[in-house]
Amino acid sequence: MSLSGFPITLDLPVLWSDQDLFGHVNNVTFLRWFECSRVKYWDDTGMRKVMTLQECGPILASVRCHYRRQLLYPDTIQVGARIRELGRKSLTMEHHIFSRAQQAVVADGESIVVVFNYRRQVGRVISPELQAVIERAEGRRFERLRGGS
Amino acid sequence: MSLSGFPITLDLPVLWSDQDLFGHVNNVTFLRWFECSRVKYWDDTGMRKVMTLQECGPILASVRCHYRRQLLYPDTIQVGARIRELGRKSLTMEHHIFSRAQQAVVADGESIVVVFNYRRQVGRVISPELQAVIERAEGRRFERLRGGS
Amino acid sequence: MSLSGFPITLDLPVLWSDQDLFGHVNNVTFLRWFECSRVKYWDDTGMRKVMTLQECGPILASVRCHYRRQLLYPDTIQVGARIRELGRKSLTMEHHIFSRAQQAVVADGESIVVVFNYRRQVGRVISPELQAVIERAEGRRFERLRGGS
Amino acid sequence: MSLSGFPITLDLPVLWSDQDLFGHVNNVTFLRWFECSRVKYWDDTGMRKVMTLQECGPILASVRCHYRRQLLYPDTIQVGARIRELGRKSLTMEHHIFSRAQQAVVADGESIVVVFNYRRQVGRVISPELQAVIERAEGRRFERLRGGS
Repeated sequence: MSLSGFPITLDLPVLWSDQDLFGHVNNVTFLRWFECSRVKYWDDTGMRKVMTLQECGPILASVRCHYRRQLLYPDTIQVGARIRELGRKSLTMEHHIFSRAQQAVVADGESIVVVFNYRRQVGRVISPELQAVIERAEGRRFERLRGGS
Repeated sequence: MSLSGFPITLDLPVLWSDQDLFGHVNNVTFLRWFECSRVKYWDDTGMRKVMTLQECGPILASVRCHYRRQLLYPDTIQVGARIRELGRKSLTMEHHIFSRAQQAVVADGESIVVVFNYRRQVGRVISPELQAVIERAEGRRFERLRGGS
Repeated sequence: MSLSGFPITLDLPVLWSDQDLFGHVNNVTFLRWFECSRVKYWDDTGMRKVMTLQECGPILASVRCHYRRQLLYPDTIQVGARIRELGRKSLTMEHHIFSRAQQAVVADGESIVVVFNYRRQVGRVISPELQAVIERAEGRRFERLRGGS
Repeated sequence: MSLSGFPITLDLPVLWSDQDLFGHVNNVTFLRWFECSRVKYWDDTGMRKVMTLQECGPILASVRCHYRRQLLYPDTIQVGARIRELGRKSLTMEHHIFSRAQQAVVADGESIVVVFNYRRQVGRVISPELQAVIERAEGRRFERLRGGS
C-alpha cells in the first residue's frame, strides 16, 4: 500500500540522524520532506519551466504539519504532494507522509506558496499557462478563489 | 528593539549554511528555532521538572509557521515563545522570530503540544501543578478550554 | 557501475536542500552519509549485537573526508563502508561516495572508531568475537596493530 | 578562558537538536561549526573581497576532525580558525572547538581549501595580494610550500 491521489510522490529513507533524543524522527525532518516534495512538484510537472519563463518562482508563505504517529528508524517514507486550491497569486499544496514500515500516514500538512517575482519582489497573478500545467498534473479543473492573495 | 511579552526569548545566530540556493534562510530553519524556544520554555520555566515528576513529557501534535519576510545571512535572530491557550491535555504555544538586522518580526507561528505519558503512550490531563507553573511563567491566569484534547 | 569491494553499501538521494549557496552539495552532507554507512555497518554485520552484549558501543574518534568532485542535485549517491584496519581498541573504516549521475567517486574518507564502554567511559579491547564478526563481513583476516589505541 | 592565537573566533550555542540518540552533540555538527569559522575568516579578514576581485573563491578539498571529548547540551562553544600553511593554490586552516561549560577544547581539525576559479573550474595560484591579507590577519609571514597544489 502507498499514497494514492497524489500526482507527485517521492520515496525517502529515514536516516539514523533523523532521530532525536526521544528516539523518534524529529519534527523538523517532516518539513524537510515536505520541501522535497514541493521541489519535485515544480520540476516534474513543468511548473518550474513555466514560472522561469514568466520570470517568477515559488516562495513559501506558510507551512503546517500535523504529526499523527511517531516515526522510527529504520524506515522508508513516501511523501506525496498535490495542489488543493489556487488563489490569485498563491496556491495551497497538501502533503502526506506515509510510513512503509507502519503502512500508515504518519504526518500530513500543507504549504501555502506564492508565485513570486524575485527581481521585483512582488507576488504575481497565476497565469493561465501555469494554471493549465497544474490542471494537467492534477487531472482536474480548478475554480480560482477570489480575493486575498 | 526586540520581542516583548514573551516569557522565554533566545538569541541565535543565522549560520551561513542556513541559507539555501535562493540566498535566504531556508524555511526549515525557522521550525528548528521554534523547537529551540520550546525546549528552553520547558527547561527554564520549570515545566520539564514538573512533567518528569508526573511521568510525562511534551510531544508535538502540530506546528505552523508564517513566513513574513525573507531573512538574510549574516544576522542574529531572537525567537520568543509564549503559551497562549491550555486545553485538557494540550497547549498552544506561540512563536515569533525577530531579526536584529531588520528590526522586524520575520516569521511567526504556533506549536500544539500534548502532555504525553511516553511509557503508556497516551496524553495526560494537564495537572494543577503544571498549570500553576505555566501561569507563573506567563504572569496571568488561564481559562481551560473544554472538550477536545 | 557502482562501488565494489565494500561489504556495506547504501543508496541515498541527494536532496534539494543538500545544495548550498554555491549550487553544489554542501561539504557537511558527505559526513552525514559517512555516518549513515557506519550505522548500517554496525547493524547489518552483527557488530552492534556483539558490542551490546559486551556492554560497549562505537564512538567516533576522528573523521576525514576528501572532496574529489562537485556533486549536484538531483542525483542518487551510493556510499560504501569497509573496515581497513583493526587496532587494539579502535578500528579504521573507509568510506567512498559514488555519484550515480557522474558514475564516479565524488568523495572518500575514513572514520576512526573506538569500541567504547559508555557506562565506564573507557575504550575496550576489541574482543575475539567482535573481530570474528568483522572478518566474516570483510571476508578476510586482520592482523591486529600493536600499540596505540 | 577561551581560545587564543586564533585571528577568527566565533561563539555559537549548542542547540537541543545538535544532540543525537547518544545524548551528546552529533559528530556532524562539529564540521558545521568548522564551516562557520571558515566563512567568517573569508569575510572578516578581507580574503573574500580579494578573491572576488580576482575572480576566484574558496573550495574545500578535504576536512578532518578529531573528537577529543563528548560535548553536551546546553553549552556555548567557541570555534577558532587560523591558517597554518600556504601551498601554491591551497591553504591549510586549523580549527579548534572550545566548550565554555567544560573549559576545554572538545574537538580540533583542519580544512584544506583550494583557491578556485569557479568559472573556469580550475585552481588558481594564491596571489601576493591574497597572501598579504592572510599575513596581516595572522600577524606573521608565510613561507610558501613548493610543489603539490
